[in-house]
Amino acid sequence: MNVKLIGITGGSGSGKSTVVKRIEALSSECLLIEQDNYYKSAPQVSNENITAVNFDHPDAFDMDLMLDNLLDLKKGKSVMMPQYDFVTHSRKNEMVRLDPKKIIILDGLMVLYDERIRNLLDLKIYVDTPADIRFIRRLKRDITERGRTMESVIKQYTEVVRPGHYNFIEPTKEYADIIIPEGGYNENAMRVLFSFVSSILHEEDQ
Amino acid sequence: MNVKLIGITGGSGSGKSTVVKRIEALSSECLLIEQDNYYKSAPQVSNENITAVNFDHPDAFDMDLMLDNLLDLKKGKSVMMPQYDFVTHSRKNEMVRLDPKKIIILDGLMVLYDERIRNLLDLKIYVDTPADIRFIRRLKRDITERGRTMESVIKQYTEVVRPGHYNFIEPTKEYADIIIPEGGYNENAMRVLFSFVSSILHEEDQ
Repeated sequence: MNVKLIGITGGSGSGKSTVVKRIEALSSECLLIEQDNYYKSAPQVSNENITAVNFDHPDAFDMDLMLDNLLDLKKGKSVMMPQYDFVTHSRKNEMVRLDPKKIIILDGLMVLYDERIRNLLDLKIYVDTPADIRFIRRLKRDITERGRTMESVIKQYTEVVRPGHYNFIEPTKEYADIIIPEGGYNENAMRVLFSFVSSILHEEDQ
Repeated sequence: MNVKLIGITGGSGSGKSTVVKRIEALSSECLLIEQDNYYKSAPQVSNENITAVNFDHPDAFDMDLMLDNLLDLKKGKSVMMPQYDFVTHSRKNEMVRLDPKKIIILDGLMVLYDERIRNLLDLKIYVDTPADIRFIRRLKRDITERGRTMESVIKQYTEVVRPGHYNFIEPTKEYADIIIPEGGYNENAMRVLFSFVSSILHEEDQ
């Protein structure tokens, strides 16, 4: 099987996950991998001292394991993917088995950061959304889905998320093949991406 | 016929014309319209006083005529398009007859500037290339194709092209559905655009 890898990145709250999920939903031949699953365990972190570890630094990710998994999938091998628990900030005990598919979508803050991973990608997409809009989305998500307080979100954002964005995420925009403003609600851009994914799936059928 | 309009813009030297020509070459169902054809006549301008008229201002274009032509083509009507002579800075006597096609590609510095034209576009693309690279390309082109001297190109660039870019072109990036770094030599982006154009042509066949 000829496995194509599409990497999608952008800042926290950029709307990249919406892009990714809409592409994933196109076909059972699409496999979504979220880079967040490759966070290293940080069990010493709690919601009270959330800034004890910098989750917005490339070192927070197990890039080597992600690379290994992607290389295996590219070769048509199944892999065991770790899972991450955002409440305990630790890797879960259970792994998830991933089987290779025609299209693998790699979604994450730093999927264009590591040169070895970048070189594996057949298409590199950067979702570019204004910083204030991104913060507002993150604020809502972290309070609703991750049990944080507004104060804790603001502290984490200004101390680590924002510097991490400008140090490690925004600079990877230069590697992008395509930049999508506003993410998954940009219908015209989605239409273009859908046609690309469909063309790959069609190609592969022949 | 359902006519789709794709607008492609970006600064002088961005590589947008290469994008456009490669899309045009895909199918005889693609019609290319260059906004440059809609420059207003400025016969008082010579290579010696090239800055006497600001060609990098929206007022340099006959936006009303371009809009009329696009509206007619959208309705399936043929139009007579003006032609521009960059040596005499005047509209030529001959017009060119354009017949509507399934895909019309509108290429120009300010195709996203006029709201009426923007609203007609089915896809808005901004080609984003670093300013120094853009200047170098423009310098080479103006000397080779337009008979200018280096001094005249630099003077025109710093006095009108550059301010015009930051005043009128760069701000239209916010209207883009998709941003393509580096233009027509970005093979991965071209592949995505080709699949989109093909999907429209295919759709129309059904």
